[in-house]
Amino acid sequence: MKKKLKLGVFGFGCVGQGLYHVLHETQGIKAEIKKVCVKTKNKARPVPDSFFTFDKNEILNDLDIDIVVELIDDANAAFEILKASLEKGKAVVTANKKMLAEHLEEIFNLQKKHGKPVLYEGSVCGSIPIIRNLEEYYDNDLIQSIEGIFNGSTNFILTKVFEENKNYTEALKQAQELGFAESDPSLDVKGYDPKFKLVIAIAHTFGVFVKPEDVINIGIDRISDLDLKFARENGYNIKLVARAFKSGDKIFGFVAPQFIDPTNALASVRNEYNAVQVQGAFAEKQVFIGKGAGSYPTGSAVLSDISALTYQYSYEYKKLEQAHGLTFSNELITEAFVSFDEGTPITGNDFEELQSGYASQGKQYMVGKVTLEKLLHWSKIEGVGIILAPKAAFIPLSNIQTRSLSVA
Amino acid sequence: MKKKLKLGVFGFGCVGQGLYHVLHETQGIKAEIKKVCVKTKNKARPVPDSFFTFDKNEILNDLDIDIVVELIDDANAAFEILKASLEKGKAVVTANKKMLAEHLEEIFNLQKKHGKPVLYEGSVCGSIPIIRNLEEYYDNDLIQSIEGIFNGSTNFILTKVFEENKNYTEALKQAQELGFAESDPSLDVKGYDPKFKLVIAIAHTFGVFVKPEDVINIGIDRISDLDLKFARENGYNIKLVARAFKSGDKIFGFVAPQFIDPTNALASVRNEYNAVQVQGAFAEKQVFIGKGAGSYPTGSAVLSDISALTYQYSYEYKKLEQAHGLTFSNELITEAFVSFDEGTPITGNDFEELQSGYASQGKQYMVGKVTLEKLLHWSKIEGVGIILAPKAAFIPLSNIQTRSLSVA
Repeated sequence: MKKKLKLGVFGFGCVGQGLYHVLHETQGIKAEIKKVCVKTKNKARPVPDSFFTFDKNEILNDLDIDIVVELIDDANAAFEILKASLEKGKAVVTANKKMLAEHLEEIFNLQKKHGKPVLYEGSVCGSIPIIRNLEEYYDNDLIQSIEGIFNGSTNFILTKVFEENKNYTEALKQAQELGFAESDPSLDVKGYDPKFKLVIAIAHTFGVFVKPEDVINIGIDRISDLDLKFARENGYNIKLVARAFKSGDKIFGFVAPQFIDPTNALASVRNEYNAVQVQGAFAEKQVFIGKGAGSYPTGSAVLSDISALTYQYSYEYKKLEQAHGLTFSNELITEAFVSFDEGTPITGNDFEELQSGYASQGKQYMVGKVTLEKLLHWSKIEGVGIILAPKAAFIPLSNIQTRSLSVA
Repeated sequence: MKKKLKLGVFGFGCVGQGLYHVLHETQGIKAEIKKVCVKTKNKARPVPDSFFTFDKNEILNDLDIDIVVELIDDANAAFEILKASLEKGKAVVTANKKMLAEHLEEIFNLQKKHGKPVLYEGSVCGSIPIIRNLEEYYDNDLIQSIEGIFNGSTNFILTKVFEENKNYTEALKQAQELGFAESDPSLDVKGYDPKFKLVIAIAHTFGVFVKPEDVINIGIDRISDLDLKFARENGYNIKLVARAFKSGDKIFGFVAPQFIDPTNALASVRNEYNAVQVQGAFAEKQVFIGKGAGSYPTGSAVLSDISALTYQYSYEYKKLEQAHGLTFSNELITEAFVSFDEGTPITGNDFEELQSGYASQGKQYMVGKVTLEKLLHWSKIEGVGIILAPKAAFIPLSNIQTRSLSVA
């Protein structure tokens, strides 16, 4: 009954090759790759030359091609391909989280305009089917929060730090040698990559579009040996946590490292694995764990989207209709451990409530309740490290009648 | 665009009441309860009397009712309701795992015959959307195995045993007092309940129908204080694990307690939580964790099925078409710790490979490789305790050319 779909693929890197092999090893799916558009000529590839083209129009203008699978790195070029494909009446499958995060509202509108779906399960936490579950399974569940480990490279680094007693620099180097971190790892370790995924997840969880530049990301690159010592002595892990939650008519969301105690479901999520924890009013706590990246896991998510297109699946974005007046906000107080060099302009008065503070070897430490705004500001100052407290409270500023500025 | 669906509900126990409240608190779903059929008259209920009927035909013959939601305990009566509902052209939502496990192939055929869907997400691991994911997301993934904690009551008991240093009897009593175990807990503690769920999962994972009576279930009711001591001394947990996997053209599946080491993802699944771990060729390891039972979590899964029916969803059972010649088998060797009273007719020769054995205080212990067939036989002998080894191997008998009967 289902027609055999023809695919035009852009990019033949790690995920593209994974898709190629997955598609050739599985039997159930009625789809085949017709053409792959790549940039670099004369490169040895594990597939016959006849598959390849260097001209994007050979795919875009091919009436026989039903689905464009966009798997290139460049977010701007990817968005151009997406737009051109929809205009040509082709469905699009992509895993480009940066492009999606930056253009999600526009992509939502383009789908309506052209009547063709864009699916992107592979963009958020690789193999974990979180978008589909948020769309289909939790559509009637009032979701309170979504949080988790959205980046495999940093989780690999942090796992090595704790399990093999390495410092941050050594662990990063090992991750790079094993291919789990890019040679320029800043998108990962500064928390941009998980932020892009969080932006996409927020749209499907709460029905709110937010721009990546409005979401705060604090990375793991400032974690010091003293932070690690503190974590080890107290039995904590450190994880880079992406989280979003609803409070009243506001949606809050940000990415930051956090001390994690052993009873937290995220504590046991190791190496390149990702985890997503959804707290719903009815389903209560749900955790999804799976490989967040890699050729096969992401290829599998992309394939699942292609499979869904064989039965005309499209995201309904139902929560957009339900999100009456919800807006994104950063007006939040949380609890953090802040470390900085002596002389950095940070004082106890900057905290809403200072819980403890001490100085050692030219470094100062302060722990207490503090606004996200301050954390963002401090995260841009050289030498400042920020880690959320193990069971940090999250208090919307609007919940505080008179802001207490007590200093303990 | 969607019509408002009318529901006829059978049963108003824990899940029925959960559904009622969930349906009244959520906004997104276009469905309302028209009638609830209950058995007991004159019972105080938190809902107006006008909702209730005591005559099943008031629901079955009501042309206005689109969906029958079957939430009663009695598996035979539930199956009669299911059949009558399909015959009357109504879709069915149920969470009755015993009924489903016993009649799944017939229910598959009845759906085809009457052209009406039966959905049952709530039947397997409560709030965890495992059936839907197996149907939709993993349809093109070659799944190698599915395993996990499929029963909340026994997991609650085992958690209390280890975290609060109780013995089995004390922990069972506490679970009963808190409502996590039935006054007759044998369906849970002897492993029947997780077996029913496993039977349903096997159909959606591998496309194979198997009768519950052909699947071996070994419970946790024979766990001795010495087993607990051994686990504690070695840093193990004990979990009641349901598992099924493919080897060649055979599907194996059974329920048995197992020593679990701390690096196993199941180790951190506590109290009434369930977990499902799927190993696929492409997606690799995926873990789903959520509440396995309870009024709201199961009500939420039932609601999700109702919601799916608003857009004409039905299970496609795609893997049935892909399961060329796969058959269920118990011809397997695994590794177990077997304890028994002196005088029980178990000897080292019964093991394919005896790894160790000792006697203490009238009890004998043997550890080694042994067939499932023997374990099943022994599990029926009073006083025999069986726990799988922490990283037990699973070796199909057909893989063994000459069965070695070496005794260490």
